[in-house]
Amino acid sequence: MTSPAEAPSSPPRERRQRVQSAETGMAVLKGLAHLGGRSSLTALATHVGESPAKVHRYLASLMEESLVRQDTASQHYYLGPEAIQIGLAAMRQADPIRAAEPCLIRLRESLEVTCFVAVMGNKGPTIVRFEEPGLPVTVNVRAGSVMSMLWSATGRAFLGLLDESRVVALAEQELADATEDMRALLDADDPIGTLRREVQQAHCAIVRDTYLRGISAVAAPVYDYAGRVCAVITALGATGGFDPSIDGPIAIAVRREAKAAGALLGAAA
Amino acid sequence: MTSPAEAPSSPPRERRQRVQSAETGMAVLKGLAHLGGRSSLTALATHVGESPAKVHRYLASLMEESLVRQDTASQHYYLGPEAIQIGLAAMRQADPIRAAEPCLIRLRESLEVTCFVAVMGNKGPTIVRFEEPGLPVTVNVRAGSVMSMLWSATGRAFLGLLDESRVVALAEQELADATEDMRALLDADDPIGTLRREVQQAHCAIVRDTYLRGISAVAAPVYDYAGRVCAVITALGATGGFDPSIDGPIAIAVRREAKAAGALLGAAA
Repeated sequence: MTSPAEAPSSPPRERRQRVQSAETGMAVLKGLAHLGGRSSLTALATHVGESPAKVHRYLASLMEESLVRQDTASQHYYLGPEAIQIGLAAMRQADPIRAAEPCLIRLRESLEVTCFVAVMGNKGPTIVRFEEPGLPVTVNVRAGSVMSMLWSATGRAFLGLLDESRVVALAEQELADATEDMRALLDADDPIGTLRREVQQAHCAIVRDTYLRGISAVAAPVYDYAGRVCAVITALGATGGFDPSIDGPIAIAVRREAKAAGALLGAAA
Repeated sequence: MTSPAEAPSSPPRERRQRVQSAETGMAVLKGLAHLGGRSSLTALATHVGESPAKVHRYLASLMEESLVRQDTASQHYYLGPEAIQIGLAAMRQADPIRAAEPCLIRLRESLEVTCFVAVMGNKGPTIVRFEEPGLPVTVNVRAGSVMSMLWSATGRAFLGLLDESRVVALAEQELADATEDMRALLDADDPIGTLRREVQQAHCAIVRDTYLRGISAVAAPVYDYAGRVCAVITALGATGGFDPSIDGPIAIAVRREAKAAGALLGAAA
């Protein structure tokens, strides 16, 4: 270990603690997935940048573990039943709250905004994790708060992008219970339909003073592996010092972080 | 290679062509999936029967490939975004026809029955692969044939177990177009509902002479990873020499093979 002759080529400590062959095996497995789950030996070897003979040995190991099968007719390799089981386990434990945590911290630190992640609870959009900078904007929402479907940016993002009849039903109930002043903030002819179309077009929801007077907010959807909106990330601030424009730096950052959270949950890029 | 001292411990040729470290890495990955996709190092090491130090090195490799992540708060390991991508690719290429092929061959050879696998096509249950023993029963169905929803065992298996409005719509259309003689074979009060309940209770569908005179058949559902019926496996024979009873050897074998095909598609055991 201390021989000077070995020093230049010996890998750093962190590298040595791993297992090179295991990593190559995983690269072959990922390569097969990236080729659509099915490939010839030649195409797979080209994709991972190794010789066919070497990739063949790794495929034999992957087949031994039922992660890969070989089609007897075409000789092509394909992902096997254990690969499905691993994916199902990964999806079951994929957690939008955990995926969104680092996103919220980046938003708070880079933009100094208050931000949170919400999921659809049984009463409506519910804040499950809340981050605020050193000098927070004072808002009366916290983790556990249920947000309005119609007047909060968070609710509107779910309303426009989550394809569930329950979401529309909650919005209709809210509309029926609303005061004339609140209704006046929405389109007169088709209040819910207009909101949905606006959000679908912008792919995010923006409010100025509708939910809380003096507060603006920007909300963007987090998609999971099934292409479903599983959470919404929202940033908010005092209307004066917060740019809620659709192409402003806050909206861009919120959309980017919502996409980063989705990538951890298997959402398509 | 030829040293006599090496001979006793040298693995067989097939074994040598694989890569031991890659297999251990895959065993760690599968172990994490079997533990629900999330585990402590200790529990995972116990599960795979290796030392925590060794498993830790493999986890470092799995983390390098984004197949595994570590929760900073609990220190637990969990399946990462690449594991979701591998599972999605495996599911996309999981093919009920390919999965059912060896099942059909086993049924044909062990029971000497004609058998086939059908999927729901746009016109109804459609035979996509057909196997027959040396002396086939003469039937006028082949690969490509669309089967009746109401009078074939195959159709009834879809009708009872595939939860799609389209399936019921096809059955209703067929009922509306049926002759009095054909209707007389079904329950008078609730023809479709009664069929569905019978199939749901038996978890397979059996017909005697209803679809083809002189032919009996037994059909069982193939489930995929999502718990959806993606195919039906059917065995058929001349009513005299074919036992279509619900607990007879043919029905038991068809149900067992349909389950084996489902296991390849990620269905729950």
